[in-house]
Amino acid sequence: MSKYLLKCITCGKEFAKDEVDYYCPDCGDRKGTLEVVYDFALVRKEFEFSLTSLQKRGIWAFDFLLPFEGKIDFPELLVGNTPLYKSRSLSRKYGIREVLIKDDGRNPTASFKDRASAIAVAKAMEKGFDTIFCASTGNAASSLSGLSAVSGLKSVIFVPSTAPVAKLTQLQVYGSKILAIEASYDRVFDLSMEIGMSMGWYCRNSAINPYLLEGKKTCALELAFEMEDDLPDFIFVSAGDGTVLSSFYKGFEDMKELGLIEKVPKIAGIQAEGSAAIKKTYEAGFPFEPIDLEATTVADSICVGKPRDVIKACHYTEAHDGLLLSVSDNEILESIIELARETGVFAEPAGATAFAGFKKARKLGLVGEKDRVVIVVTGNGLKDLKNVSAVLPEVRILPPDRDAIEEALK
Amino acid sequence: MSKYLLKCITCGKEFAKDEVDYYCPDCGDRKGTLEVVYDFALVRKEFEFSLTSLQKRGIWAFDFLLPFEGKIDFPELLVGNTPLYKSRSLSRKYGIREVLIKDDGRNPTASFKDRASAIAVAKAMEKGFDTIFCASTGNAASSLSGLSAVSGLKSVIFVPSTAPVAKLTQLQVYGSKILAIEASYDRVFDLSMEIGMSMGWYCRNSAINPYLLEGKKTCALELAFEMEDDLPDFIFVSAGDGTVLSSFYKGFEDMKELGLIEKVPKIAGIQAEGSAAIKKTYEAGFPFEPIDLEATTVADSICVGKPRDVIKACHYTEAHDGLLLSVSDNEILESIIELARETGVFAEPAGATAFAGFKKARKLGLVGEKDRVVIVVTGNGLKDLKNVSAVLPEVRILPPDRDAIEEALK
Repeated sequence: MSKYLLKCITCGKEFAKDEVDYYCPDCGDRKGTLEVVYDFALVRKEFEFSLTSLQKRGIWAFDFLLPFEGKIDFPELLVGNTPLYKSRSLSRKYGIREVLIKDDGRNPTASFKDRASAIAVAKAMEKGFDTIFCASTGNAASSLSGLSAVSGLKSVIFVPSTAPVAKLTQLQVYGSKILAIEASYDRVFDLSMEIGMSMGWYCRNSAINPYLLEGKKTCALELAFEMEDDLPDFIFVSAGDGTVLSSFYKGFEDMKELGLIEKVPKIAGIQAEGSAAIKKTYEAGFPFEPIDLEATTVADSICVGKPRDVIKACHYTEAHDGLLLSVSDNEILESIIELARETGVFAEPAGATAFAGFKKARKLGLVGEKDRVVIVVTGNGLKDLKNVSAVLPEVRILPPDRDAIEEALK
Repeated sequence: MSKYLLKCITCGKEFAKDEVDYYCPDCGDRKGTLEVVYDFALVRKEFEFSLTSLQKRGIWAFDFLLPFEGKIDFPELLVGNTPLYKSRSLSRKYGIREVLIKDDGRNPTASFKDRASAIAVAKAMEKGFDTIFCASTGNAASSLSGLSAVSGLKSVIFVPSTAPVAKLTQLQVYGSKILAIEASYDRVFDLSMEIGMSMGWYCRNSAINPYLLEGKKTCALELAFEMEDDLPDFIFVSAGDGTVLSSFYKGFEDMKELGLIEKVPKIAGIQAEGSAAIKKTYEAGFPFEPIDLEATTVADSICVGKPRDVIKACHYTEAHDGLLLSVSDNEILESIIELARETGVFAEPAGATAFAGFKKARKLGLVGEKDRVVIVVTGNGLKDLKNVSAVLPEVRILPPDRDAIEEALK
């Protein structure tokens, strides 16, 4: 008897764990996203958690709620166990009870996506694949690349040729095969599916691979265990494809089913204005029909015009009365600087988008003074220095002369 | 009664903790480096350590062996508690018992230097300063910048104008005052001392500030607690100024004095060939007289021609029969790639220098097949992408066409 099965989010059909690899054959790749459903009676028997295990094993400390059975052959990098900071300065500045920062840029390849890639790599090894592929604007790729490297798995990465150089260098260093294609992310995604599947490689594409969400949800699990019974009122997180947003709901819902928490916090999904397809789809109302667009934003990790997980993200947001907001590129870039100066956490644009969304929600009165808020920083600022540089003054070069330097200090 | 005092490494004179701030007034700034000496009877009374404390507080879990008394007002970023990985693939490849990687690029600003800056910032706050300064080729600066930001302390950073852009952007984002001076690191250092001291700011310069070493030594403390009684035979770490090298000896010696470990492992200090001033000084023999040089290497974090801590590093190396080796820039850059592909850890050039040194030591037979070795990666590769890019092939841009892509895969 298996502890989990896969269920189509549209038609509700259930599949045994190895019956299908990706989406529901009846509903297709976008509406037929599969969700992992656990047998919570079995999970309860397996349940065992300790802080020491989180410290030593990272996300694998949550193996009781992960889609594996028996011994897991997982990549030997410490994924998860990222710091959660109380920011007294932000609480004061924005006049609310508590602001906490979850710094997921502290993952091995410096982004939240390591959580998903770790699961995908372990799954590929369990299923006996020797090559894994993905299409990515950046972080999914670099995380897959790093985690495949340490596991001895070959990786093939389809990227738009506009991806930031920092992210491509990381892929090359790790030894991935890089296919840099002169096309939008959405077109690159389609090409990756066509080619990757015909080659017989394992697919790590968002919302296609049902297990990625299980990796991403570990951030919610970590928060729940760190904050114990005292969960926040809101969790702010950036949204592009919609899978990260969904993953927080899934994590808390699984915890609730297990009887470990009582309520699911509201999640606020923050999109860039030029890439707000989920927000637009949601606002058009039920039954949700994807509204696609030509995406453009400085926050490359969430620059998605045709979000793969839009339906699930909308369903979750509606069920939990969550928020979907958008912020401008300028608000995003200014938020990087403010967040760094107030908290010491340097975020990449998509990482600071959540903070920009928090500020907007506070201004609109959607977050009240008695609220406690977690802001999830999904990637490290070192991954994309070019965009933030644009809003910083040029560094003046000084001669090696005391008078000139003292003059510059005035 | 204070738990520590400061002692001159040359004349041996002792000073009460607040009697002097920096070096011994009789021996001057280079020979008069001060070392923190603890009253181990008092420390033993305070001793309390747990893995949970390391998990939650990082280096402050070692407060019993840090130069503070009473409650410490420390920067609220999690410094230390970095992962230690056993690399089965490197052990196999190099035919030795065990290779472990300590990934200190996982610190908040992505380098080992956060350990020292955290102590300096806490010290500045304890002593009532409102501004702190340093001269740095990069990592000391970015770590000081980030840790000052979260603590509300002003920071002024003197850098050579050739410092990698990534590192300057980090400083700007954190809001430091940057003085980018058209001069070598050594000249920039002298200017920083002249100006910073006359302005009455707190000094975070290596080997001038005696407390930095106490922060750096926490990496050795972490290793000791993680590995328990089973300490490695060698620890490989890159060396520029000499303080990092010395800090490992100091950490283990303090642990030994406390009765927590029995032997001090041998430390191998690895320098870049074009910047091997400590190695040259050491090889010229006792009594050590600094041999300065014009430094040049791709590993900017250890590009130091006039190392500030050379005497202490030589004394320690002699006392413990340690190693001092040098490696070429090409060996360093190739080591970045090999390390990333074998372990998933992407190091900056200075970070991979330690690994290059390990390979050389193994080849020379200085490390035997029964040895256990720790390689300390002192900084994340995202901090300096330019140098490693030079040894990687250019990424070819492909048209969005299946045939062309399949052709590229052959």
